[in-house]
Amino acid sequence: MRYKTVIEYDGSGFHGWQRQKPGCRTVQAEFERAAEHMTGEPVTAVASGRTDEGVHALGQVVHFDCAKQYPPDVMARALNHWLPEDVRVISCEIVADTFDARRSAKRKTYEYVMYTAETESPLRRTRELYIGRSADAELMDSAARLLVGTHDFSAFMSSGSSAKTFTRTIYSAGVRAEGGRIVFRITGSGFLYNMVRIIAGALVRIGRGEKELSSVQAALETGDRRLMPDIAPPQALYLVGAEYIDVG
Amino acid sequence: MRYKTVIEYDGSGFHGWQRQKPGCRTVQAEFERAAEHMTGEPVTAVASGRTDEGVHALGQVVHFDCAKQYPPDVMARALNHWLPEDVRVISCEIVADTFDARRSAKRKTYEYVMYTAETESPLRRTRELYIGRSADAELMDSAARLLVGTHDFSAFMSSGSSAKTFTRTIYSAGVRAEGGRIVFRITGSGFLYNMVRIIAGALVRIGRGEKELSSVQAALETGDRRLMPDIAPPQALYLVGAEYIDVG
Repeated sequence: MRYKTVIEYDGSGFHGWQRQKPGCRTVQAEFERAAEHMTGEPVTAVASGRTDEGVHALGQVVHFDCAKQYPPDVMARALNHWLPEDVRVISCEIVADTFDARRSAKRKTYEYVMYTAETESPLRRTRELYIGRSADAELMDSAARLLVGTHDFSAFMSSGSSAKTFTRTIYSAGVRAEGGRIVFRITGSGFLYNMVRIIAGALVRIGRGEKELSSVQAALETGDRRLMPDIAPPQALYLVGAEYIDVG
Repeated sequence: MRYKTVIEYDGSGFHGWQRQKPGCRTVQAEFERAAEHMTGEPVTAVASGRTDEGVHALGQVVHFDCAKQYPPDVMARALNHWLPEDVRVISCEIVADTFDARRSAKRKTYEYVMYTAETESPLRRTRELYIGRSADAELMDSAARLLVGTHDFSAFMSSGSSAKTFTRTIYSAGVRAEGGRIVFRITGSGFLYNMVRIIAGALVRIGRGEKELSSVQAALETGDRRLMPDIAPPQALYLVGAEYIDVG
């Protein structure tokens, strides 16, 4: 039986999604341990994509197999019983064996949450990025919209990536101001290493008037990483969801 | 010179406001250390009221004295330089020597933040209380409004309180549903030990249909603590502010 789950997690206490050496707390290791407790079988969990250390997920999609068939709501409750309180299964269903949380994902959506205020807020610091007293959200929105389409995103990638191709399709990207927050939202076919945080870093600069809007266009055209030197910190980044129905 | 500051803090990392034994991290100790770094003098900080372990503050008011006079904005910036990132000075002013953050406070306002959802949210767990799939916010509001006025609040107090009188005046109290959250807000002349969390604990029960609205009236009339056995956890409680102008 293959189970597809949607999970939420607070990235603050994890070294990212991917299982690492023992003693290094990761979401994958916690999830697999909970699933092994539930099923009594060794479990390998596959996510729609890795999230880095400190990055949160509102709707990470994870699949795993187990020999026995349980009603999905029983599986969800049991996983939540065994999971630590900073990870929760939101939904669970049984899917075809051909479903693959990573390979079948057609689109993924991320949000990067910023705020402006007179002073930095202690209560927001683990969830949102303080970007100063004011920022031009409309200009940030214009910059984000330049990314929509199919482009070579080489300039928006940290070194150390294992990606073989640098072309990705962005279906939508924009910045909205809502209730004291400035939220950058992007949906794409896939993302290169640190791509969303590098874009967010550029948007912060543009919103503050420290970088030209034209630098985004230039980076898309030249692939020159030196045009995009800023990487926004992880604690304000959220994997919102992954889509599997081909709505392309 | 007496300085009045308004500070915000994330209570998660503190054993409350009040200075305790060495090694026990408190907001008061961190604040005094920052002020001593700034002024070069020993500093005693006085807050509008103690907050317990895990309780947050959006607008705690603190006063302290120092021999030298600094412009308030210079003092605020210097304190923020020395304070850890989970405490921030929002504003600072020089006040008369007769001002006392605790004794002069006429009203204090707290909020207790709850939410309902299909499943508990890892990302909200350090800031809000999960109270189940649904709750009757209107009924909770009716219960809260019963508290308005001058009453003996003996039934809404944990043992171990050093209070000598149990009569307090509540100027306003209510529950509002907003954007997926249920927020209890209360303004009063003062609050007994654990009073806001005990009220919140009763409101949760009432909202879930596990307790009668009439129990609040009975507790006010009899002072019987056994009617109010629930204490809501601290991480969803916020000291919003303290008022000093007599608007009574």
